[in-house]
Amino acid sequence: MTARRAPGSSRKVVDHRTRVGRERRARTQSRIVAAALQVYAEQGPDAPVIEDFIRAAGVARGTFYNYFKSTSALFEATAKWLEEDMIVSIETEIGRTKDPIERLTNGVRLWLLRASSDPAWCSFVVRNRRRSALVEQTLAGDLRGGRRKGVFSYPSIDVARDMTVGTVLEAMRRMMHGRVPSTYIDDVTRIVLQGLGLSNAAIDAMLSRPLPALQRPVQRVP
Amino acid sequence: MTARRAPGSSRKVVDHRTRVGRERRARTQSRIVAAALQVYAEQGPDAPVIEDFIRAAGVARGTFYNYFKSTSALFEATAKWLEEDMIVSIETEIGRTKDPIERLTNGVRLWLLRASSDPAWCSFVVRNRRRSALVEQTLAGDLRGGRRKGVFSYPSIDVARDMTVGTVLEAMRRMMHGRVPSTYIDDVTRIVLQGLGLSNAAIDAMLSRPLPALQRPVQRVP
Repeated sequence: MTARRAPGSSRKVVDHRTRVGRERRARTQSRIVAAALQVYAEQGPDAPVIEDFIRAAGVARGTFYNYFKSTSALFEATAKWLEEDMIVSIETEIGRTKDPIERLTNGVRLWLLRASSDPAWCSFVVRNRRRSALVEQTLAGDLRGGRRKGVFSYPSIDVARDMTVGTVLEAMRRMMHGRVPSTYIDDVTRIVLQGLGLSNAAIDAMLSRPLPALQRPVQRVP
Repeated sequence: MTARRAPGSSRKVVDHRTRVGRERRARTQSRIVAAALQVYAEQGPDAPVIEDFIRAAGVARGTFYNYFKSTSALFEATAKWLEEDMIVSIETEIGRTKDPIERLTNGVRLWLLRASSDPAWCSFVVRNRRRSALVEQTLAGDLRGGRRKGVFSYPSIDVARDMTVGTVLEAMRRMMHGRVPSTYIDDVTRIVLQGLGLSNAAIDAMLSRPLPALQRPVQRVP
C-alpha cells in the first residue's frame, strides 16, 4: 500500500477517462436494453436466445457478456429500465405534491392505470422478481412520511412495503389474465390505504381528488 | 344426437371401467409428480429437462406427454400438489373453528410459519403463478364469512383476495431472500387484518390467541 497518488494534473486526465469510459458503458448498455425490448416484443419473454440479442444490438458476443452475465440478467435490466422510466413519469406529475398520502394514492393509481392500458409493460414488471431501487426509495419515502404525519399506521416499514407492493403486483396479475370492473383500480388503492390504517372518510377524500394524467411520454415496449 | 343410452347392466360395466381408468390415471399422475419432486430437489426448479422426469418416474415419453404437456405444466402440478397438501394440514387443525376471522388469522400464520421453516416448499409456491382451487375456495369462504359477520369490510371480494394473497406472497419472497425479525409473521398477519378493516383492538385479540401446531405430517420436498 505504498503507491503514491498521481499528482493533480494527471489525476484529472484519469478522472476524465474514467468518466468518458463510464458514459460509453452506459450508452452501450442502453443500446443492448433497447434492442432487447424489440426482441422481447417480437418473440415474447422466454423464447429469445443470446444470439437474438447480440444480432439486434449489433455487438460482439464478448461485449454482450461484459454487460450481462445471462439472458435472465438482461431481462431483469430491461424490466428495471421500464419500471424506473415509469417512476420518472409519475414523479414528473406528482413531484410537486408534498403530502405523502396523496403521493402514494396517486402513485398507485397511475401505476395500475398504466398496467391496465399497457399489457406488455405490465407483464415485464410482474415477471421481474425484484423491484428497482427507485421504486423502493420512492415508496419508502411516502410510507415513512405518512407515518410521521400520524396518518399511516403499520407494524414496520418492511411489512407496509410488502403489503403495498404485494397487493399491486397481485392486481397486475389479475389484469393480465382477464378483464376487471371499471372500479377495480380505485378499489385496489382503497384496500391498500385501509391496510395502511386510513379511515373510510380519509380514503373517500383521497380518491375524490382528480388524478393527474401523465404528460411525459413513457418508454413503450415496441 | 340420436345415440341411445346403454341399458342398465352394461352401463354399470362402463361406469366401473371409467372409474378404474380414472383411478389409474390419478395414480400415474401422482407417481410422476412424486418423482418430479425428487428431481427438483436434486437439480433445482429450472435445470431439469423432460428426460430427467421420465427417467425418475419410470414412464415412457408418450405416457409423460399424456399427463403433462410440458415441464412447466409439471412444475405447476407439483406446486399445486404441495399447496393443497398444506391446506389439508391447516384444515385438519382449524377445521373445527367456525369463526371466519380466527380461521383466516391462523391460516395466514400457519402458512407463513411453514414458509419460514421450509424454504423448498416456499420457493415452489412463490414460483407458481396460479393459486390452487382449494386455496381460492378456502380463502373466499373466510373472506365472505367475515364480511357477513360485519367484521371484514372491503370494496369487493376480488380486491380482498388480491390484497391477502399478494401480501402473503410478497412476505414469502422476503423470507426466501433473507432473515426476518421474529415478529414478522404476526406483523404481516396484522397488516392483512387491518387491510380487511379490523380495528387494532380486534387484531390484538386475534393475535393473542394461541396458534395451533400442525399435527398432520405435511408433504416435504425430499
